[in-house]
Formats: sequence, structure tokens, C-alpha cells
Amino acid sequence: MSLAKLNKRIDAVDSLLCVGLDPAETTSAGDTFAFNRRIIDSTHPYAAAYKLNTAFYESAGAVGWDALELTIAYLHKAYPDVFIIADAKRGDIGHTSEQYARAFFDRLNVDAVTLNPLMGYDALAPFLERADKVSILLCRTSNAGAADFFDQMVDSTPLWQHIAHKAAQAWNRHNNCMLVMGATEPQHIATARVLAPDIPFLIPGVGAQGGDLAASVKAALMPDRRGLLLNVGRGILEHSAPAAAALRYQMAINEARGQ
Amino acid sequence: MSLAKLNKRIDAVDSLLCVGLDPAETTSAGDTFAFNRRIIDSTHPYAAAYKLNTAFYESAGAVGWDALELTIAYLHKAYPDVFIIADAKRGDIGHTSEQYARAFFDRLNVDAVTLNPLMGYDALAPFLERADKVSILLCRTSNAGAADFFDQMVDSTPLWQHIAHKAAQAWNRHNNCMLVMGATEPQHIATARVLAPDIPFLIPGVGAQGGDLAASVKAALMPDRRGLLLNVGRGILEHSAPAAAALRYQMAINEARGQ
Repeated sequence: MSLAKLNKRIDAVDSLLCVGLDPAETTSAGDTFAFNRRIIDSTHPYAAAYKLNTAFYESAGAVGWDALELTIAYLHKAYPDVFIIADAKRGDIGHTSEQYARAFFDRLNVDAVTLNPLMGYDALAPFLERADKVSILLCRTSNAGAADFFDQMVDSTPLWQHIAHKAAQAWNRHNNCMLVMGATEPQHIATARVLAPDIPFLIPGVGAQGGDLAASVKAALMPDRRGLLLNVGRGILEHSAPAAAALRYQMAINEARGQ
Repeated sequence: MSLAKLNKRIDAVDSLLCVGLDPAETTSAGDTFAFNRRIIDSTHPYAAAYKLNTAFYESAGAVGWDALELTIAYLHKAYPDVFIIADAKRGDIGHTSEQYARAFFDRLNVDAVTLNPLMGYDALAPFLERADKVSILLCRTSNAGAADFFDQMVDSTPLWQHIAHKAAQAWNRHNNCMLVMGATEPQHIATARVLAPDIPFLIPGVGAQGGDLAASVKAALMPDRRGLLLNVGRGILEHSAPAAAALRYQMAINEARGQ
């Protein structure tokens, strides 16, 4: 069960930090892989997980996919206990979602993939039914446009709370769900923790997007002092000393969770 | 303006048919390209557009992306007036959506891409701002799970109608939007036509999914007898005579639109 892998890694490195590997531009698979490898080699002592946003690789076409595959293969080989997330935000009709589930869980062999729940259960089922893998559902994102639909009121509660509720009550049968909760609204994270007490959160939006790290971590914590991954991309990748930046984030998160 | 390209092609071949190029399995880029090329060469007299669902290519990794790129390059070269859709259902925070817009509109050079609107305006903006390209927003899909969120009531109207309304009132400034409206609920298509009278629909769900072709076409038609693309994938690809199947769909659609 893949959340067990995550929890083991969190404890081993005493970190809830997820490093977002979003390379600025992919000119060759080798260059991007070399860049990612440098980041991984210098930050892994402080990182529970790595998240690769597929957009940054797809924008380079087949070369980008090669870079994505090389990076994931390297993670498996060099740091087999690290948790690997493909940030793909996929979601399509069942027949097609099966293809995506195969692409990410089997071919790329990541531990988790981010999913867009708008199309409903059957779009997610091919992922959710994989008890050996983790499905990370968009619940309330950190961008301004999130207000357009996530915050629309359905039966007196915002749509995003219905997503959290469905995940907690119906979709987490295999105990393999996570929810994306943006750091820009820590009070939403606190509400989501009540609605979905057993589901860990993936929290983007700290750093370049200006979310509140300490408030987000405190709101998301579970009684076991885990319960979240805090993702930082540009704040580490674009730092002159990525290892020092990762260490500083690890420490700030641990301070917030009282360790 | 890319909808002009679509309209010109519709008139030239007198067809509202879109052929979905979703190859069953990609073992090599060459084999999948050869398969797609056979389908394209035999069906193009009856097709206004081709739609490539990225899931079916991504599931083969870099080899799949090569097949996708080869197919699109072939369409541009052999049939330059055909309308090309990447069915990718993307949507991410602005910074990331810019990468996707570049991947699809510039690198792959398709005319249109399908988008998931859940994350709101800024997730769509990098696509919508491309006046030379078409953004096709998921509005009401054809799968059973669509009821989970699209049909949730927001201020006494289903969420999907808010998407149609936003598209019509705010997001179609460049007259470059389309909406995905599943064929399984023709009455929804009729409602969407009222809410968004000037926006063409991409209609999946006929064929394998059992949607009603004639009712869907009639509901979506605009006064100019255009206003939709009806997508058929497996119903043509898996047919023993794809050309005959495409011709039959073209004729059925034209009969429904009274031509």
C-alpha cells in the first residue's frame, strides 16, 4: 500500500517536504535529466517526495517524456524509498482514464498521480481501484480562479467541500486517497481536515504563490504529526543553493508541526 | 481565426463529423502512425476534423508522443485544411497552463485543445488568450459520473450551466471557444444552445456510449446549419470499413441537420 511507503519515508527523513521538479525549459532529455538529478542528489536528505508536473515535460514533446522517464527511473534506482508523484491533473471518461492510469502507474511507475474530479467517479475509478497506488484529487487549489467553481455553493456548502466529503465517505475505500489543498487559504485546509480526517493533503502554493507555510501545516496535521506533504518548486529549484533551501523548508515545516 | 478554419472545412466537405483517432495500443510510433494514416487517408473526404485523445498516446510514453506528433504533422501536410483537436482535458494554475498551451498550440501545432474548467479562469487564460486557436471547455460530459459534480445545483441551476454561461458571457471574447456537450443527454444540449447561442459544441458519446445522434445534432444546430462537431472514435476505427462507416455518420448527421 503506497501511503505506507510515504509514511515510512516521512519518518525516515523526518520531513513533510515535497520538491516540485518543474524544469524551466527542456531543450534535450539529457540536459533536463541532468538538472533534475542535481536537484535530487542535493535535496533528497530533506525530501519525503518529489513531484513532477507533466506540463513542463510535455511542452518539449517526446524529448520531454524521455526526461520525465529518465528522472523517475533515476529516483527508483538511487532513492527507492522516496515517494514519486506525477502532477498530471488527469480525468476523462472511464475507457480513457484506464489508459492514463496505465500510463502513470504502470509505464511511468509513479506512486501517485494528481487527478481532476470534475467528471465524477467513473473518471477516477481506474485510479482509485489501484490499491497499490495513491490518487491525489484536486479539492481546493491555490489559484485565484479557484473561486470560479470550487467555491460555488451547492446546498449551502462550497463545491470543494463536496469533493472532500465524497473522497472521505466514498472514494477512499482502499485508503489510497490524498487531496490537493492550496496553501493560500489555510482556513480551507482546517475545514478539509474536519471533513476528511484520515486523508493526507498535498499542499502547493507556498513560496512563489505566497501561501502561509506555518498556518497551512498546522491546519493539515493529523494526530500522528503527519497528514500532509508541502510542495515547493521554484523556491528550491531557482535558489542558488537548492540543498540549503530544501533544508530550510524542512525545518520550517517541522517547527510548525512542533518537532 | 481558427473557428473560421473549421467553418471553411465544414462547408468544403459538407460534414460535421470529427473522427477520434484513439489507437487501441501503441507498440511503436511507426505502427500507430501507419494505423492513423490509413484511417485518415480513407476517412478524410467525410471528416471536418480529427481529434486525438492524448491518453492513448501517453500510455506508450515517448514513443506515443512521437506517434502523436507524426500524425499531426501528416495531417498538416496531406490535408492542411482539416481541423485538428488535441483532446487533452488540461487545466492547471496559470504558470503551468502556459506550458500546456505552448505544448499543444505551438509545439504540437493543433487548432484546438480540450480543457477542464474546474480550476477557473486563470487556468484557462493562457489558452483563451490565443485568438488564433480554439479552446474547447468541458461543459457537460457523456459519462455516468458527470452527475457527481456537473449536475450539482448552484443557485438553482446545475454547475454545468454555469460553465456554459461563463463561456458565453466572459470567456469567448476572441470568439474562439467551443463546449463539450455529451450526446447522452440531448436535452442538455438544447439548454446549452440557449445559454451559449454563438458557441459551437464538440459532441462525444454517440456510438460506443449510446448517445442519440439525430437528437443531439438537432439540439446543437445553429441557424447557419453548423454549430457542432460530432465525434466518433471506435465506431469508425474498429469498423471493418472505416471509410464506409465515416460516410454513414456524415450522412446521418446531414440528414439530422436537414441537408
